[in-house]
Amino acid sequence: MVDKERTELIDLVKKVAELGGESALKFFRDPKLTVDNKNLRTFDPVTEADLASEVAMTNFIRTVRPDDSIVGEETGFTVGSSPYTWVLDPIDGTRAFISGAPVWTVLVSVNKDHKPILGAIYQPYTREMLIGGLGVSKFIRGEFISKIKVKSCSSMGDAILFSTFPEVGTAPERKIFNMVSKRVRLTRFGMDAYAFGLLANGHIDIVMEAGLKSYDICAPIAVIEAAGGLVTDWAGKKIVSGGKVLACGDKKLHMELIDFIASMDDKT
Amino acid sequence: MVDKERTELIDLVKKVAELGGESALKFFRDPKLTVDNKNLRTFDPVTEADLASEVAMTNFIRTVRPDDSIVGEETGFTVGSSPYTWVLDPIDGTRAFISGAPVWTVLVSVNKDHKPILGAIYQPYTREMLIGGLGVSKFIRGEFISKIKVKSCSSMGDAILFSTFPEVGTAPERKIFNMVSKRVRLTRFGMDAYAFGLLANGHIDIVMEAGLKSYDICAPIAVIEAAGGLVTDWAGKKIVSGGKVLACGDKKLHMELIDFIASMDDKT
Repeated sequence: MVDKERTELIDLVKKVAELGGESALKFFRDPKLTVDNKNLRTFDPVTEADLASEVAMTNFIRTVRPDDSIVGEETGFTVGSSPYTWVLDPIDGTRAFISGAPVWTVLVSVNKDHKPILGAIYQPYTREMLIGGLGVSKFIRGEFISKIKVKSCSSMGDAILFSTFPEVGTAPERKIFNMVSKRVRLTRFGMDAYAFGLLANGHIDIVMEAGLKSYDICAPIAVIEAAGGLVTDWAGKKIVSGGKVLACGDKKLHMELIDFIASMDDKT
Repeated sequence: MVDKERTELIDLVKKVAELGGESALKFFRDPKLTVDNKNLRTFDPVTEADLASEVAMTNFIRTVRPDDSIVGEETGFTVGSSPYTWVLDPIDGTRAFISGAPVWTVLVSVNKDHKPILGAIYQPYTREMLIGGLGVSKFIRGEFISKIKVKSCSSMGDAILFSTFPEVGTAPERKIFNMVSKRVRLTRFGMDAYAFGLLANGHIDIVMEAGLKSYDICAPIAVIEAAGGLVTDWAGKKIVSGGKVLACGDKKLHMELIDFIASMDDKT
C-alpha cells in the first residue's frame, strides 16, 4: 500500500466511525426510541439508531471508496472489486444503548484478505475514539491525543477480566469462564466492545466473550493488535469470524490463559 | 428552610460534587495509580483518588458550612451543631474507576433528621450531574440542562433491571434476585450508583442491590425521590443506612416487585 492510500484509509476509518456515531447519538436517551426485537428469545434489539448509523456509514463509503466491499450488521454484504472490505457494527452494545449507558460503540474495520488491517472503536457520547492498524495506534478525545498501548500483567492473579454477560456461551463454556473468573483479581460485566477499547488502552487485562459475530470483533482485533495485544479464540487460534474470543494485553498472560483453558477443557 | 438557604444548599451540593469529581478525575486512567486494598478478600480498593476527592470536599464544606456534620466514606464522622449532615462517597464504583470505565460517580447528600433532603450524583469524565431535592430535579451536562423524571413501566416483564454484580448479597438474596432477573425484559451489570442516575433520568426501571452502605445510598435516594421514583429495602421499608436496596421509577412496578419478593421469601 502506498503512503497516500494508507493516510487516506486512516482518515476515512475515523470519519466513517464519526458519521455512524453522530447518527446513532441523535437517538441515544430519546424516550421515543422504538426498540424492535430481532430475536425475542435472546433480546437483541435493532433500533432505528442502528439502521441510521449503518446507512450513514455505507452511503459515505460508497461515495469515497466505490470499489470496496462492505459488510454491515444491518444491511448485509455489498460485493466490490477492490481487495478491501469494510466491516461495520453501527451500534455494538444495543442493550447498553437502550439502557442509556454510554458504553456502546461504533465499530469500523477495514479488512484485506480476510484480515483486519485497520480498525476504529468509537463512543460518541464520551467522544472517545481508538484507532489501530497500518502503523498507527491512537486514542483521540477532542483535543487530547495519545498513543494506545496495552499494559503488562504477568499472571492471572493480577488481572482485571471483563465480559459482557455473566451468562457466557454454553454451559461448558460458562464453566471455563467461571474458573478463570475465580482466579483473576477482578471480574466486571456489562461493557460490550467498550471493554476491548479499555484493554487496548492499557486499563484492563483480559476480555473473554463467546458467541460474537465477525462485525463484533474485526475492529477490536485491529485496534488491540496495534496496541501490542493479542486476540484469539479460547484455544489460541487466530479468528476473524467471531465465536469465542480471548483478548489479552500481555502475551505471557495470554499463554497462561490458553494453557489453563486447555487444562479445563480436558476435564469438561 | 428559608429560600435563601435552599438556593445556597442546592448550589453547594453541586459545587461539592464538582470539587470531589475534579480531584478524583486527576487520577482516573493514570497508569501509576496506587491501588490499596481495604479488604483483600472482597477487593474493595481505596485509591489515592478516593482520599483526594474526599479531602477536597470536606475542606470546602468545613469552610462554607462549619456548623454542619460530615460523614465521609474515608475520613469518618465529624460532628457539627447544625441539623444538617453531609454524606459523602468520594468515588462510588472504585472497581469501575480502576478499570478505566467512566461509570463511577461522586455522591453527595445533605441529610436532615436522618433523611436525605438533597443529593448529587456526578460523573466527571462524562460531566454528567444529577441533582435532586428541595424542589429541584435536574440533569446538567455543560450547557445542557434538563428536568429529570423517572419513566413509567407498569410490569416486570417490560422492565430493565440493573445491579452492580451478578453475585448479589447472600445465597438466599441471590436466589430472589435471580428470580426477578428471569422475569424482567433485560438485566445489566457493572454500573454502581451510575445506575441510580440512569433510573432517575428515566432510562431504566429497577436497581436491586445488597450490602450497600449509607454513603452509597443517601444521594441516590434524594435524586430518585425528586425524580418521582421510590427507594426502599426489598420489603418496601424506607432506608437510609444501606443494606438491601430496591429502587424503582414506577410506583406500581415497585409494588409488584415487593409482592413478588415477599412471595419468594415465603419459599426460601
